[in-house]
Amino acid sequence: MPVAAPPRRTLLTTRMAPLINDTFLRALRREPTDYTPVWLMRQAGRYLPEYRATRQRAGDFLTLCKTPELACEVTLQPLERYALDAAILFSDILTIPDAMGLGLYFTEGEGPRFERPVRDEAAVARLAIPDPDAELRYVIDAVRTIRGALAGRVPLIGFSGSPWTLACYMVEGGGSDDFRHVKSMMYQRPDLMHRILAVNAEAVSRYLLAQAEAGAQALMIFDSWGGALADGAFQTFSLPYMKTIVERVRAATDAPVIVFTKGGGLWLEQIAAIGPHAVGLDWTVNLGHARARIGQRCALQGNLDPMVLMASPDVVAAQVRDALDSYGAPGPGEGHVFNLGHGISRFTPPDHVTAMVDTVHAYSRAQRGAQKGGA
Amino acid sequence: MPVAAPPRRTLLTTRMAPLINDTFLRALRREPTDYTPVWLMRQAGRYLPEYRATRQRAGDFLTLCKTPELACEVTLQPLERYALDAAILFSDILTIPDAMGLGLYFTEGEGPRFERPVRDEAAVARLAIPDPDAELRYVIDAVRTIRGALAGRVPLIGFSGSPWTLACYMVEGGGSDDFRHVKSMMYQRPDLMHRILAVNAEAVSRYLLAQAEAGAQALMIFDSWGGALADGAFQTFSLPYMKTIVERVRAATDAPVIVFTKGGGLWLEQIAAIGPHAVGLDWTVNLGHARARIGQRCALQGNLDPMVLMASPDVVAAQVRDALDSYGAPGPGEGHVFNLGHGISRFTPPDHVTAMVDTVHAYSRAQRGAQKGGA
Repeated sequence: MPVAAPPRRTLLTTRMAPLINDTFLRALRREPTDYTPVWLMRQAGRYLPEYRATRQRAGDFLTLCKTPELACEVTLQPLERYALDAAILFSDILTIPDAMGLGLYFTEGEGPRFERPVRDEAAVARLAIPDPDAELRYVIDAVRTIRGALAGRVPLIGFSGSPWTLACYMVEGGGSDDFRHVKSMMYQRPDLMHRILAVNAEAVSRYLLAQAEAGAQALMIFDSWGGALADGAFQTFSLPYMKTIVERVRAATDAPVIVFTKGGGLWLEQIAAIGPHAVGLDWTVNLGHARARIGQRCALQGNLDPMVLMASPDVVAAQVRDALDSYGAPGPGEGHVFNLGHGISRFTPPDHVTAMVDTVHAYSRAQRGAQKGGA
Repeated sequence: MPVAAPPRRTLLTTRMAPLINDTFLRALRREPTDYTPVWLMRQAGRYLPEYRATRQRAGDFLTLCKTPELACEVTLQPLERYALDAAILFSDILTIPDAMGLGLYFTEGEGPRFERPVRDEAAVARLAIPDPDAELRYVIDAVRTIRGALAGRVPLIGFSGSPWTLACYMVEGGGSDDFRHVKSMMYQRPDLMHRILAVNAEAVSRYLLAQAEAGAQALMIFDSWGGALADGAFQTFSLPYMKTIVERVRAATDAPVIVFTKGGGLWLEQIAAIGPHAVGLDWTVNLGHARARIGQRCALQGNLDPMVLMASPDVVAAQVRDALDSYGAPGPGEGHVFNLGHGISRFTPPDHVTAMVDTVHAYSRAQRGAQKGGA
């Protein structure tokens, strides 16, 4: 029987420290865990004074993203404070369009902007797929650096924006509250929109695979603006392109894939059907209902309202317990990763996060104990 | 058999012109109609040059709202252009908190703001329920003026923000993208939040009833920020207060009530259960699925993506046909009112609206014909 050469990623992994805490990966693979693992979207961020200090040292946000040592430093900061079960690469969602040459810049208070938004046929025709090892080399270097620095403590999550979400920024030229330009193109010139999305899907696939090769142990696709799409348009302009990526990534690496469409609660079955290991949930979704709908087909990740963390630690703990009760203890072939339903707010008092993380661990251990005791 | 005195509203109605086009009211009551009636949220608005002219004449937005003759003028403007099946009172969603003395003002580009947001126990304790016939007299006068000017052409819709949506503006002091202040209060001091919501529910009930008495023939509750709430919080802090209003209004008037929670697609059954005549849908909801879920219990209103109207008239017509096909022809005890899934954009080319309205009428007539032909 011919034996295929082991993929590069496996070779690389063997050179790295063995994983000490694999609870997060086990939950994504729907294997039994002693407790519910937890991490926070945007856990390395402005709510942490140590992050603000590093960012000040970097000078500006893009320098922070583009300097692997600094990206590594801030990625590890929340792990020093909290008993988190995963680290996530510190980077920006717009690295790909930046690498396409659209001219990413940041304005104070207005968020990211592009100097050259993609608004017409000529601009679409000019789009080229960036080489992760060239234009995005700083991200791949950051992954490698962080993975080394983690020394097997917890798994490292790599990520990308979804093709549709990247297209929103590329066409709008920045954030938007009505998505007028990108939706105008989508409705009036679906051919152009599909061209952008095909380029983005290929770019995201290569980018995520390169992150996995460099050491990322799980991969997440942020479809942050999928929920802005109409029913029907989501299934045409976001979902199929994420499916392409999930299939490409699953064929080439064993890193579990998480797909998170914010505002996608109505489409959970369809999202689960594109084959990710886990589906991210925002806080409008009832965890128990989501478990009944898709919990046997993939793991669930979420979904505390980030604003819960503005309340006092006792309120935070009570809300965490309610969320864990809503999901219940995972049964065979089920998995739950605790998280917020969106990124943590910059106004969050850091000690409130301690209450969240510690309650998730303690209460979910107790749930499993009660389940065993009752069985 | 003792005969109860007719309610004041009926007396008033008899003094008014008989209704010529009652298609909208029939659809809300789930009675048969020859075609699907249509109106647009924010149909009197900035996308119309004649609206911009009246507003310029008024000087500022609040003067426009507070001058019944001007409010009447802009309310009627879209009816001159389009074959709409309903008019909606031109007013602002924040009239109630303004009447509570919070000091509403508008800043260019930033939207509405309050001088005195409700942030602490003392501010909550000071809240008083406005008298619709005193502090809100200008709205009631506008309803009466518009109803007279309509002369029975189409029904007039009165409206209010939901208690939760008003609370968002009252506590935040304006618009928000994270609802940090209002959610902090909600999670940390639910007692204060419930107090605000109880005051708002009473204020909204009286306000809507006064509008109905003055001539409004249907009433709509805009829960524009209900979808920002977590599952569980929606059922605690928005839904029960809307239920109170629906019950109060239904007991006192025969004007049909529409409840619209933007982003509430996951909760349609629960919204239908509070007893409105119709449930509004945003564009993330599949119309056919919504019909299957709640279409036998109440009428549905919606739900074209307002950005469809940025595309050319032929694209608009195709999207309208798709939406009508998704719902299908209403069966016995069903009703559909065509609308956008949210307010029309100020950037909409006015002639694209003609394509929408005319296609709704023509295609839905054809659907009913085909249904009869096939039966």
